[in-house]
Amino acid sequence: MSDPAFDQHCMIRALQLARQGLYTTDPNPRVGCVLAKGGQIIAEGFHARAGEPHAERHALTTAGAEARGATAYVTLEPCSHTGRTGPCADALIKAGVARVVAAMEDPNPQVAGNGFGKLRAAGIQVEVGLQESEARALNPGFIRRMRGERPWVRIKVAASVDGRTAMASGESQWITGPQAREDVQRLRARSSAVITGIGTVLADRPSYTVRADQWRLGEYGSDQVRQPLRVILDRRLRTPVDVPVVTTAGPCLVVGGEAHPERQRALEAAGAEVMHLPSSGSGVDLKALLADLSRRECNEILVECGATLAGAFVREALFDELIVYMAPALLGTDARGLLSLPLVRMAEKVSLRWADVRQLGNDLRLTLVPE
Amino acid sequence: MSDPAFDQHCMIRALQLARQGLYTTDPNPRVGCVLAKGGQIIAEGFHARAGEPHAERHALTTAGAEARGATAYVTLEPCSHTGRTGPCADALIKAGVARVVAAMEDPNPQVAGNGFGKLRAAGIQVEVGLQESEARALNPGFIRRMRGERPWVRIKVAASVDGRTAMASGESQWITGPQAREDVQRLRARSSAVITGIGTVLADRPSYTVRADQWRLGEYGSDQVRQPLRVILDRRLRTPVDVPVVTTAGPCLVVGGEAHPERQRALEAAGAEVMHLPSSGSGVDLKALLADLSRRECNEILVECGATLAGAFVREALFDELIVYMAPALLGTDARGLLSLPLVRMAEKVSLRWADVRQLGNDLRLTLVPE
Repeated sequence: MSDPAFDQHCMIRALQLARQGLYTTDPNPRVGCVLAKGGQIIAEGFHARAGEPHAERHALTTAGAEARGATAYVTLEPCSHTGRTGPCADALIKAGVARVVAAMEDPNPQVAGNGFGKLRAAGIQVEVGLQESEARALNPGFIRRMRGERPWVRIKVAASVDGRTAMASGESQWITGPQAREDVQRLRARSSAVITGIGTVLADRPSYTVRADQWRLGEYGSDQVRQPLRVILDRRLRTPVDVPVVTTAGPCLVVGGEAHPERQRALEAAGAEVMHLPSSGSGVDLKALLADLSRRECNEILVECGATLAGAFVREALFDELIVYMAPALLGTDARGLLSLPLVRMAEKVSLRWADVRQLGNDLRLTLVPE
Repeated sequence: MSDPAFDQHCMIRALQLARQGLYTTDPNPRVGCVLAKGGQIIAEGFHARAGEPHAERHALTTAGAEARGATAYVTLEPCSHTGRTGPCADALIKAGVARVVAAMEDPNPQVAGNGFGKLRAAGIQVEVGLQESEARALNPGFIRRMRGERPWVRIKVAASVDGRTAMASGESQWITGPQAREDVQRLRARSSAVITGIGTVLADRPSYTVRADQWRLGEYGSDQVRQPLRVILDRRLRTPVDVPVVTTAGPCLVVGGEAHPERQRALEAAGAEVMHLPSSGSGVDLKALLADLSRRECNEILVECGATLAGAFVREALFDELIVYMAPALLGTDARGLLSLPLVRMAEKVSLRWADVRQLGNDLRLTLVPE
């Protein structure tokens, strides 16, 4: 009765739809849905933004009475819990859908299978696992968080071929070109939070905002720019109240370690949130930080900082991707290194695996993952 | 009368033939020849080894009387000078070839066009420039040398993603995998000479020989392995007589700067040649060295050495390719850098251009050229 090639075609379309929510659904997952009947796609939907309808709802609304007897292709198990419009599983049952093909189970082990159970109990044929790895790749952070693990952490660095980021004097400038910088915008836009250190805030005065004019957000389900939470690790609360990361649009969280009530009040008056975390070794306890960000529903986190903090994430193995934008240049032996990582013996080397290599304008983007 | 698509087909075949001499023709250029008549290739040839017949001779011998009225496709202008069997231009005339299509002129400006002139004077139709850039890429060093310029210099380094080659202690090991090492064999095999420094010779005891068992040399025109000249920069003649680079097959040239008659005699007794060159700054005068190697008919040179010497070639802009074999690992901030290159200001950075990026097993090979 079912045609595997058509099933795959519909699921790939559902994945494309899900991808339209890449920059907007946070903290919800990116989900797409296709309804098909008689070898034809009759309705499509994707989740665009938390608080708005789920992918299945959009497709069912479009299909109306035509949904009866249709097959629903969903990139994630339909929810079985009551949100603001009731569970999607119930909506599929009510619409008379005959078959549900899902790419993957709900990643939360406590609820995984409940949606499918409801559908099956209502006599709907359920199949799970089509294009599963593609579906997982859409929501790496959401999946981790639902499992009770830390968020998905990407460390981003820009370096020369000899692995240097700035001159010894601190003199730095964009060493990579506009395409690489635009790509960083996309990384930020899909992230729940950007983590940086006070040193970078003081030296470079970054804003870490997503600039909508740099890319066409409208193609991605919303023309509203969602700004990631900017997190500054700043033990002594030295963040000036007038730096861009505090004053520009979007939330800012200053993570301190020592009580400085006056500075704290000033930062809070400027609109930043201040939180204290215990230190671990030379800096903030990164595990505690990531646990806190997980509680704040952060899925994907971008670490954009200097060599010291980036090195700490690597040393503690608290990362999932190392993304190196590599410029075709040599900055020389005295220039600053990529990551502060004082290793002595070859046996201590950090082994990685290439996940992706591509050219962005005049630069390369190297994506590495822990081995 | 002529068919451009067939012409291109024949020239591409001639380039393939030329490539079969990649590892063996040194110091001669790699050249291929195809003879075609009536829309059919009737004979092929390539130059395999200095002292053996040129590409045109092989093809003409195969074709015999059939060469009359044929078109000859050659990747390089036929020679007009008298070698051991007379000029190829005369041979083509004598065989009655009607038309000659050449990819490029003789690179020596003193003789460029003489071969074509002879052919034209004999009433042969001559066309020049088909697939010229591919033909030039076959013989970058030969072309430079014929123009009276220095040889083509490739600097080869193996590094981690953070641009490190060994631990601070000197502890090193192959950080790249077998495919990358095999690729280095191919680089050596096509090179006229390998340049290294005494520091590397003492620390790593390399041989820099081409190991025939690692790849199928027989596919490239000869089953005899040609060893590159191994050049050791060794001002004080500290090279021990029993190191592999001296004792293994193939010529070895020790370049000194101070008189050490006893050491020199010992090295010469061990089979090495000793030559003295003036120093320039901290090391040997690299321009003088390259001029000498050019006089020795070196076309392509591979620089395989430590950070100091490699850095000197970069600082003096005496290189044409920087080839980085990059392992998916981090060796840390204290590890040794790629190139000794003490730059202070960003304006001094060495700007390069990506020429090629590819995966070799678990490693990347990045090829960069000066901008």
